[in-house]
Amino acid sequence: MQRSTLAVTENLTCDDFLGGKLRIWQPRSGYRAGVDPVLLAAAVPAQAGDTVLELGCGVGVASLCVMTRVAGVNVTGVEVQADYAALALRNAGENDLPFDVVQADLRALPYEVRQQQFTHVIMNPPFFDRTRGTAAQDPGRDMALGGQTSLADWLDIGIKRLAPQGYLTVIQRIDRLPEVLAHIEGRIGAIVVEPIAGRATKAPENFILQGRHSGKTPFRLARPLVMQRGDRHESDREDYTAQVSGILRDGDALPLFD
Amino acid sequence: MQRSTLAVTENLTCDDFLGGKLRIWQPRSGYRAGVDPVLLAAAVPAQAGDTVLELGCGVGVASLCVMTRVAGVNVTGVEVQADYAALALRNAGENDLPFDVVQADLRALPYEVRQQQFTHVIMNPPFFDRTRGTAAQDPGRDMALGGQTSLADWLDIGIKRLAPQGYLTVIQRIDRLPEVLAHIEGRIGAIVVEPIAGRATKAPENFILQGRHSGKTPFRLARPLVMQRGDRHESDREDYTAQVSGILRDGDALPLFD
Repeated sequence: MQRSTLAVTENLTCDDFLGGKLRIWQPRSGYRAGVDPVLLAAAVPAQAGDTVLELGCGVGVASLCVMTRVAGVNVTGVEVQADYAALALRNAGENDLPFDVVQADLRALPYEVRQQQFTHVIMNPPFFDRTRGTAAQDPGRDMALGGQTSLADWLDIGIKRLAPQGYLTVIQRIDRLPEVLAHIEGRIGAIVVEPIAGRATKAPENFILQGRHSGKTPFRLARPLVMQRGDRHESDREDYTAQVSGILRDGDALPLFD
Repeated sequence: MQRSTLAVTENLTCDDFLGGKLRIWQPRSGYRAGVDPVLLAAAVPAQAGDTVLELGCGVGVASLCVMTRVAGVNVTGVEVQADYAALALRNAGENDLPFDVVQADLRALPYEVRQQQFTHVIMNPPFFDRTRGTAAQDPGRDMALGGQTSLADWLDIGIKRLAPQGYLTVIQRIDRLPEVLAHIEGRIGAIVVEPIAGRATKAPENFILQGRHSGKTPFRLARPLVMQRGDRHESDREDYTAQVSGILRDGDALPLFD
């Protein structure tokens, strides 16, 4: 029996994304989608007709953001936790987006996913290494933050599902950049890393990495994406930079190859 | 017989570094030291009493810059090309700095170097991969730009010579960051990467990487060091940022762990 990760499935919130273009149901106390899946989605260079696979889609924020920005993409999400997969389907339905959600463990993808190659594979893998950290109190949040699947497995499974010339796009914490680069080095090319910094005066905390199956362009490090204006927090309201506000509120793209 | 890489050993220039605190003889037409060895030296967190090993010291710019900034360090340079090693010794003598230069191939270090462990190992390995590129016209420049020793060998040899808690500091082209991180991942820790960008509006072209033997601090990406003011080249004079001018002209340090 699948263990329910939401003690009370009715204990949900409904939150606006992309300036209200998307309304997303998610658990009040489990893993809650923030800006990361929206940034990830903005970086996916999808076009009409492309296929997209999201590994670990949670309640579907990244995939639904891609579908909102780009009409005519065919998006499949895989989520191991039944309650999150059910919410992803509900969010797809309520936003009138034909998002295909598969409840499965990444390491045991069903045949219909394994037989496909995708123009884009996207992922927002857990930011913490479960083998080094302590568990979170909420098991759903714990799974989303740490999970049982190693980052190497996430990357391997993603790379295997890429079509020729397909794009892999990953968001992750900066301290895992060496691990990610070491793992994909020589297996995908045309890699670009965009660091994400809270402020222009701060070292980046996260990064988005994109690479291409059979890509030949040398590695590039982009200038950091800066989230907030100014040197420090000066008021209670969010003070996003124009670029980030455009991504989060207006659904702008975040092109990494510029 | 060692092949001379300088057709005419008298065909030299004498150039100021660190605002004239150092005067460096180097071949007019071979590999010419620019800002890279000065930035490398600035990033070395050396203190009086420390030992420093420079692999591939050329005419000695990086090592002599470290010795100029930090009194009481014991610095050894290894250089395979006899003419460059001789110039490094001449530069040490004319600048009154007790720089110990060893003419040797990195892959066959003499016993007196192999039996030592150093507080700091520094290197400015060739920026181009000889197995992929074409040779430069000048054999000395070609060796300095590409060399016969793989980047993996440079890193291996450097890591082997580190004392416990010792620092490895490397400057390299940004497109080789994945290769460098993949090679050292798990072998040294507390790694920080400082990207170096020509201008604030440009993607970084080079990076300095520093790591510590037995270091435990998670990987960090620093904010880019920006070389020039403004968006583009607006006059013939150099228009360095204040930080870079301080490093190049005044011999300031470039602390990576801030």
